[in-house]
Amino acid sequence: MSRPLHLDPDRLLPAEPEVRARARALYAQVRNLPIVSPHGHTDPAWFAYDQPFGDAVDLLLAPDHYLYRMLFSQGVPLEQLGVRSRHGAPAFDPRTAWRLFASHYKLFRGTPSALWLDQVFAEVFGLEVRLQAATADLYFDAIGAALQTPPFRPRALFERFNIEVLATTESPTDTLEAHEAIRRSGWRGRVISTYRPDPVVDPEHELFKDALQQFGSMTGRDVYSWHGYLQAHRDRRAAFAALGTTATDHGHPSAATADLSERDAQALFADVISGRFTPAQAELFRAQMLTEMAKLSIEDGLVMQIHPGAFRNHNRPLFQTYGRDKGADIPQPTDYVRALKPLLDRFGNHPRLAIIVFTLDESAYSRELAPLAGHYPVLKLGPAWWFHDSPEGLRRFREQTTETAGFYNTVGFNDDTRALLSIPARHDVARRVDCSFLARLVSEHRLEEDEAAELAVDLAYTLPKQTYRL
Amino acid sequence: MSRPLHLDPDRLLPAEPEVRARARALYAQVRNLPIVSPHGHTDPAWFAYDQPFGDAVDLLLAPDHYLYRMLFSQGVPLEQLGVRSRHGAPAFDPRTAWRLFASHYKLFRGTPSALWLDQVFAEVFGLEVRLQAATADLYFDAIGAALQTPPFRPRALFERFNIEVLATTESPTDTLEAHEAIRRSGWRGRVISTYRPDPVVDPEHELFKDALQQFGSMTGRDVYSWHGYLQAHRDRRAAFAALGTTATDHGHPSAATADLSERDAQALFADVISGRFTPAQAELFRAQMLTEMAKLSIEDGLVMQIHPGAFRNHNRPLFQTYGRDKGADIPQPTDYVRALKPLLDRFGNHPRLAIIVFTLDESAYSRELAPLAGHYPVLKLGPAWWFHDSPEGLRRFREQTTETAGFYNTVGFNDDTRALLSIPARHDVARRVDCSFLARLVSEHRLEEDEAAELAVDLAYTLPKQTYRL
Amino acid sequence: MSRPLHLDPDRLLPAEPEVRARARALYAQVRNLPIVSPHGHTDPAWFAYDQPFGDAVDLLLAPDHYLYRMLFSQGVPLEQLGVRSRHGAPAFDPRTAWRLFASHYKLFRGTPSALWLDQVFAEVFGLEVRLQAATADLYFDAIGAALQTPPFRPRALFERFNIEVLATTESPTDTLEAHEAIRRSGWRGRVISTYRPDPVVDPEHELFKDALQQFGSMTGRDVYSWHGYLQAHRDRRAAFAALGTTATDHGHPSAATADLSERDAQALFADVISGRFTPAQAELFRAQMLTEMAKLSIEDGLVMQIHPGAFRNHNRPLFQTYGRDKGADIPQPTDYVRALKPLLDRFGNHPRLAIIVFTLDESAYSRELAPLAGHYPVLKLGPAWWFHDSPEGLRRFREQTTETAGFYNTVGFNDDTRALLSIPARHDVARRVDCSFLARLVSEHRLEEDEAAELAVDLAYTLPKQTYRL
Repeated sequence: MSRPLHLDPDRLLPAEPEVRARARALYAQVRNLPIVSPHGHTDPAWFAYDQPFGDAVDLLLAPDHYLYRMLFSQGVPLEQLGVRSRHGAPAFDPRTAWRLFASHYKLFRGTPSALWLDQVFAEVFGLEVRLQAATADLYFDAIGAALQTPPFRPRALFERFNIEVLATTESPTDTLEAHEAIRRSGWRGRVISTYRPDPVVDPEHELFKDALQQFGSMTGRDVYSWHGYLQAHRDRRAAFAALGTTATDHGHPSAATADLSERDAQALFADVISGRFTPAQAELFRAQMLTEMAKLSIEDGLVMQIHPGAFRNHNRPLFQTYGRDKGADIPQPTDYVRALKPLLDRFGNHPRLAIIVFTLDESAYSRELAPLAGHYPVLKLGPAWWFHDSPEGLRRFREQTTETAGFYNTVGFNDDTRALLSIPARHDVARRVDCSFLARLVSEHRLEEDEAAELAVDLAYTLPKQTYRL
Repeated sequence: MSRPLHLDPDRLLPAEPEVRARARALYAQVRNLPIVSPHGHTDPAWFAYDQPFGDAVDLLLAPDHYLYRMLFSQGVPLEQLGVRSRHGAPAFDPRTAWRLFASHYKLFRGTPSALWLDQVFAEVFGLEVRLQAATADLYFDAIGAALQTPPFRPRALFERFNIEVLATTESPTDTLEAHEAIRRSGWRGRVISTYRPDPVVDPEHELFKDALQQFGSMTGRDVYSWHGYLQAHRDRRAAFAALGTTATDHGHPSAATADLSERDAQALFADVISGRFTPAQAELFRAQMLTEMAKLSIEDGLVMQIHPGAFRNHNRPLFQTYGRDKGADIPQPTDYVRALKPLLDRFGNHPRLAIIVFTLDESAYSRELAPLAGHYPVLKLGPAWWFHDSPEGLRRFREQTTETAGFYNTVGFNDDTRALLSIPARHDVARRVDCSFLARLVSEHRLEEDEAAELAVDLAYTLPKQTYRL
Repeated sequence: MSRPLHLDPDRLLPAEPEVRARARALYAQVRNLPIVSPHGHTDPAWFAYDQPFGDAVDLLLAPDHYLYRMLFSQGVPLEQLGVRSRHGAPAFDPRTAWRLFASHYKLFRGTPSALWLDQVFAEVFGLEVRLQAATADLYFDAIGAALQTPPFRPRALFERFNIEVLATTESPTDTLEAHEAIRRSGWRGRVISTYRPDPVVDPEHELFKDALQQFGSMTGRDVYSWHGYLQAHRDRRAAFAALGTTATDHGHPSAATADLSERDAQALFADVISGRFTPAQAELFRAQMLTEMAKLSIEDGLVMQIHPGAFRNHNRPLFQTYGRDKGADIPQPTDYVRALKPLLDRFGNHPRLAIIVFTLDESAYSRELAPLAGHYPVLKLGPAWWFHDSPEGLRRFREQTTETAGFYNTVGFNDDTRALLSIPARHDVARRVDCSFLARLVSEHRLEEDEAAELAVDLAYTLPKQTYRL
């Protein structure tokens, strides 16, 4: 009663035969282009030490909050899925957890998770039947066995996936030991970090106090003075850049920016490090720090990424038991027009600055983001992100931004993932959706074939390399 | 010069032939499934006493604010359409009103009202020409004559429509006499009520004071004390449940919830019953009552429905003359992320609670509602509602929620109507749109055929039965 | 290496063959209908004095902020494109500017600007190769040569474009000399003005003080008294109407309206003319003036247009150097439900008033605007506007408004342009998109063929003539 797992070569392409044929032809030109992954969350230690992955649960299920959030929404307790709580890893049987996942796999119908996983199952592991309760053990055993073989080591996968460059994300307080180890090893894979200073920039981050102390001890700067603190950023950015980093990333609750006088910034910083600050001061400090980061980016050339709009850790009891990043971050309405103005008034027309802005609030695409990116020289639009890096989400992004911002104020795709195995599938989905959009424009005579062919390559490969200065 | 009224068997299915063929095949499997209508506003007295309906105006036009709002928007005075004002029913000639409606019927082109009405005209009344000025009398006479015959009595229609269960909506102060009469009658039709406590929960409701008094006298509780008031809810919920009710419904201006201490809740209640309260206190009381209702639902198992976001009675002069529910309720931006948090912090992961959330603000689908429903065990997404229970609206709902929440955090269709005759047409539209969406996913190889077939039945029949605990 | 410039006769029509055939048939019925352009920004002096246009840069590039905003977003300095700053016209070489534009033309791929321009190039100038660096000179020379010939004079173009009526936009302080000259000339072209009082209504307008003084001297009224000020409006509206004006236009930051008592309005006005007012008072004054304008419209029959929602001059350094209207106006979230209520409470059901409301915030289409226009007799929905008068934008407008407001609460297309040559192309795009939408409804059996045919003509021609009382 097992059913064949079938990856159709035309998947995600539009049904109408003429448009599909055009999309197929465009896609054929980009499907084998190298993967440029300028924003993600894989673990650099994988590539530094090249140790085999564990089992299917350890690799695919427990670290992927897209998966267990859906199971949780239907009443499956997280501990049964192997999710670590603040009390440590649960006592659980991986095979039982996998069976539980398999028996709920229909929850993912119509979601990008199913698309990505099925492609991983079929292309990476060569599985030929679909995942369901009856095939759970077959999957668990086949994946487990494969992971013990050399072709499934991290570096082998990286090479097999044809990844040209892969960016991870680290805090300023990370020693970058893994990245240094990669460099020293002589392996040719290009794995670089991204400077993500949230823990030392967000006074409301639960690690702020500790991270700040570590920030000081790593850099030898007096990070409790405003100038020492900024100098510490300068130091760590340089250390990141020396290992190949080309970008920073800022995950803030809102897109608020500020442009305080030196004196006011210093006074605000004093309140922040005293630990006695209001939520409004915390917000203002994060806002000011985006402008400070822009100043440093003008100095050192790092591209800025601003990822605003998530209400983090929305589920209080879950946060108390399991901590952050457990699938309980919920998007909220996000203003860009007023929020970005202080930074843009200061640096919006600067020839050396590049800021990539993302949104979780799709209503901002046509209303705010495309008009802003279609005007300001420093601004580019990050791709459909997080909940929206899906076929419908990627399509809406193009439909709602292209007419005002054009294609050339966008930056290609981000996989934004910790799930190494899904990286090719995620880029493949984006390429298919972009080619489908281009094919429709050609079929509706809104674009010439040669233009679409050039754009398909630009969106899949050229733009991310250029914009992220890779 | 009359034109044929043609209901195409493929109506609403996508034009592309392959997708249409798939949609047609899926639809064939669900078109004759029984109707489960867990949320609506028909009059239980129809089924209790099974009296014939009046004429076409009385049945189809005067009670349907979808229809007269459109005529009103083009300058047609309500009194000419037979709409009752606060001064009573107008002196009007039904045939003249019907002619007026018929001569404006083109206003409904492209609207769901036209789809529903044409299906009623063709399938329920067997009319073969389209409604227009020239056929107004033919329609008025044919409908009037049919309504006097036994097959057009309420119970006969209910059976002919293959309705498995139909929920009406009543206030706690309703005696449920009609529902009791249905039970006593021995008729096998399953008509149940829904507990909608707005008049005794919303201090700004124009009936609040009277309703509260009645609430006390019906239950014998001291509803002017916090505990007596809650106990009265408990009593009436039990009385509803005893007659088959499985759900409550809460139509609030916003989705605000609160979780006050016992002491604060009691103090707030005291202000509310004193009649001296601010708008903010009224809002807080409604917010607190959602959490109180959740507590009672955990006790008695009733499913909660929250229908927020309408600015009621927006047209002040119209409200002054005609009262509420005259087509002048206008949606407004609606926050869910912060609004629902107090209730979710308290009960969001509770295994026995089920809350179905609706929206009139489509921008919340992908931004807030799908992420919330795709995470919280207690939350499910109500279907596209009110202005959005239309082909484009139902399609947008699926396109904007499925990738994040999946199908299984949605609950099937609500017809939400007082227009008994339109119930089959409304469910038919939803089934056609859902099958079209599923067919597209199959054609784009995002879903297998067997999965789509199972989903079509789940969306049309299984999910509403399960979620509403029917 | 030049590539053919090809305008496909089926451009913008849906790819699916059956739907395309229907759309083509509908479009054939409307493509040659006269153009009714009730809202735009061409210069009446063109038609009054019928002088030849200059070169390609002067005519097509420098005045079109859609074009240079995109170039600016990619780092091209405005002075190189011939854009005038506050210091006057830059020293620049038009041919070099045109080459710069041509070499960046790929930025416009997928934008409506490219659609409009290509149609102008092909149909107005008969160019047969596409614009790119290699053809820049060919274009510059061909356009420059054509502009010196009689068929390219303004009146000849107006006639060739089959424009039945063209509305320009002037301030109350405009002498209307050009419009008078057109009337006196005996030329039969119907060019009328629109009364746009923003400079004398918005206390925060940089010209307010000067404009007010001029307003007084032109009318001989004491415009520093509330009654004299209103009387001056009455006078100028009458002068506009005497030259054919049928509408007013109000470009406000928000849709706020107010309905103050006579005494409060007078006191507010006193503060406003004193120059000592808060931003909130400025907003309240603009809000009150919409209601005052509605009163005057009830007197004189001018149709009101409200265009809210732009954050003007967002780029401060650019504004300081170049002034307003340089492509730096950014839309922002716009409320209608609460904002319009004071005006609607006063006049929402008035039989002689007509208000056309526009939005830059597409999330308001289905949530607020369609429900409001589908109810209030005075309200009509303006078409997709500014950033949204594009194929995707026009399609979203129909998809998101029709089911609730119908077609007959909309008003046809506005080209809203200063680019005379693009007017036929813009109306052509709108007609193609509307016919495509209608064709889809027919193919999905949601509309009959005869209904679609009638609607196609109504949307392209009848509705704008009726609604704007032309």
